[in-house]
Amino acid sequence: MTKKIKEVQLISISDLLDIEKYKENGAYFCERFGIMMNLGDVPENEWMNPYQPYRSKEWRIARITSGVSKYIINLQEHVLQKNTIHILPPGTLVMKVSQSDDLSAEFLSIYDLDELNSRIPQGHTLYYTADEETGLRFHEYYKLILRMTQDSRTPFTSIRLTAFALAEDMISQQEEIQGKNKDKIKLNRHQLLNDQFMELLNQQGTLKHEIRFYSDLLFVTPNYLSNVVKEISGQTVSWWINYMVVMEAKMLLLHSNLQIGEIADRLGFSNLPFFSRFFKRETGMTAVAFQKQFS
Amino acid sequence: MTKKIKEVQLISISDLLDIEKYKENGAYFCERFGIMMNLGDVPENEWMNPYQPYRSKEWRIARITSGVSKYIINLQEHVLQKNTIHILPPGTLVMKVSQSDDLSAEFLSIYDLDELNSRIPQGHTLYYTADEETGLRFHEYYKLILRMTQDSRTPFTSIRLTAFALAEDMISQQEEIQGKNKDKIKLNRHQLLNDQFMELLNQQGTLKHEIRFYSDLLFVTPNYLSNVVKEISGQTVSWWINYMVVMEAKMLLLHSNLQIGEIADRLGFSNLPFFSRFFKRETGMTAVAFQKQFS
Repeated sequence: MTKKIKEVQLISISDLLDIEKYKENGAYFCERFGIMMNLGDVPENEWMNPYQPYRSKEWRIARITSGVSKYIINLQEHVLQKNTIHILPPGTLVMKVSQSDDLSAEFLSIYDLDELNSRIPQGHTLYYTADEETGLRFHEYYKLILRMTQDSRTPFTSIRLTAFALAEDMISQQEEIQGKNKDKIKLNRHQLLNDQFMELLNQQGTLKHEIRFYSDLLFVTPNYLSNVVKEISGQTVSWWINYMVVMEAKMLLLHSNLQIGEIADRLGFSNLPFFSRFFKRETGMTAVAFQKQFS
Repeated sequence: MTKKIKEVQLISISDLLDIEKYKENGAYFCERFGIMMNLGDVPENEWMNPYQPYRSKEWRIARITSGVSKYIINLQEHVLQKNTIHILPPGTLVMKVSQSDDLSAEFLSIYDLDELNSRIPQGHTLYYTADEETGLRFHEYYKLILRMTQDSRTPFTSIRLTAFALAEDMISQQEEIQGKNKDKIKLNRHQLLNDQFMELLNQQGTLKHEIRFYSDLLFVTPNYLSNVVKEISGQTVSWWINYMVVMEAKMLLLHSNLQIGEIADRLGFSNLPFFSRFFKRETGMTAVAFQKQFS
């Protein structure tokens, strides 16, 4: 008997949707490229279920064209509304919270966009609400790429390059906005420390559950870190660490073939009962019950 | 007194046109980018004069939208008509022959597009007439880039990247067409030898005027080369060599500060009288008269 490989499943849009159904509405789907579609064509109940975190498989580039939706992306709340631009690299921790009935978006998912790695590394996202002009520009790129995908002669490299140009354009438009507001905002030291903590938590939070680990890396006392994070984010450091662990635990319960004992191990718990008690306390249900509820 | 530097002037579109006048019609001009405009806005008599060869300074990317024009580009006749796509690298030897009154084109000139060097090296061009669908795609890119140039916040890098995506898309559409016709055309050996000769002539023709120089490089006898080139192009090897030298001589007379003796030297003539007799015989006028006629 061969050993079954233990793995975490990264989720692509085609895992979440019955793509075939939407091809008729102009959605474009191809193994190498990914998918391009208007999310407005997809009824809410067929789209990603709320409160089920997963890690994404592909690059996602989107502009909201109507409606509102709320997501937790790498632990942070993202409110998406008209002209919100979203670029998420592969491996992003995504959880839908809610979406309005009239949600629609121009949406592109694309497997390989390595050129963007240095601009938006894993753990980061591009997330801002653009002005009308920039929104229109996204729309023009979107139409152009759609046109390209619908011509069967177009090689994948051409589509990829234009998608890259779109992403770069959206990034530099945001930098432009940021630059303009730099004087106004003047990120204070508390804000900065909070942001650095959140970045570390996203990178290391699944295994490192001690405040001191983070405060040491940030050259402050645990007390000071706790006070600042509480002041800026409204929640304590411990709350954030638990939040991260629960999110990752749920993701692994839903999207891996790991045993619960292995999940506990991956999350840095020294034994299964510790993990079980932790999960029950934080979510109100057992890990097994959670897993069953969504399968 | 400092020595005056001897140089050949590469010609940019802004050397040929009074750009300021066309800004009102939506032409976009910037020192770093180059220019973007609809050539239909420029009356024939203000545009490049016919029969005055020059070497171009920037990358040029164009799609003809109406009318017809005829150019000699790197010694070859180019007939431009609706949906002809043209990409010329810097240093291309350009000579207008004629153009119809209703000529109009979507036109981009851009200084720095190094990424394209390997795709279209100096001495080569992209030149083909596209189908409606590809023409429309060029138009969509053009509109998008125009929109970007009109937003003062857009950084140059974004515009450049999208222009590069446009060029790549046009190149790959042509490769697609070529690929489809490969079986039909089956470039025969005579055609191939002729093409290789033309390429060598463009690279070396200003200095190398001996048939044997070319036939040796192509591993054939001078006689065989002459017969094949005559069969394919309708002209002899000597005719082509003279054509190249005259073209370059005219270009230098018009667009450099070199003395005529220096031009003769640059073109590989061992003394000025040889060059003068050659020029008079080929063009019917002396070099000085030619220079005066157009200055």
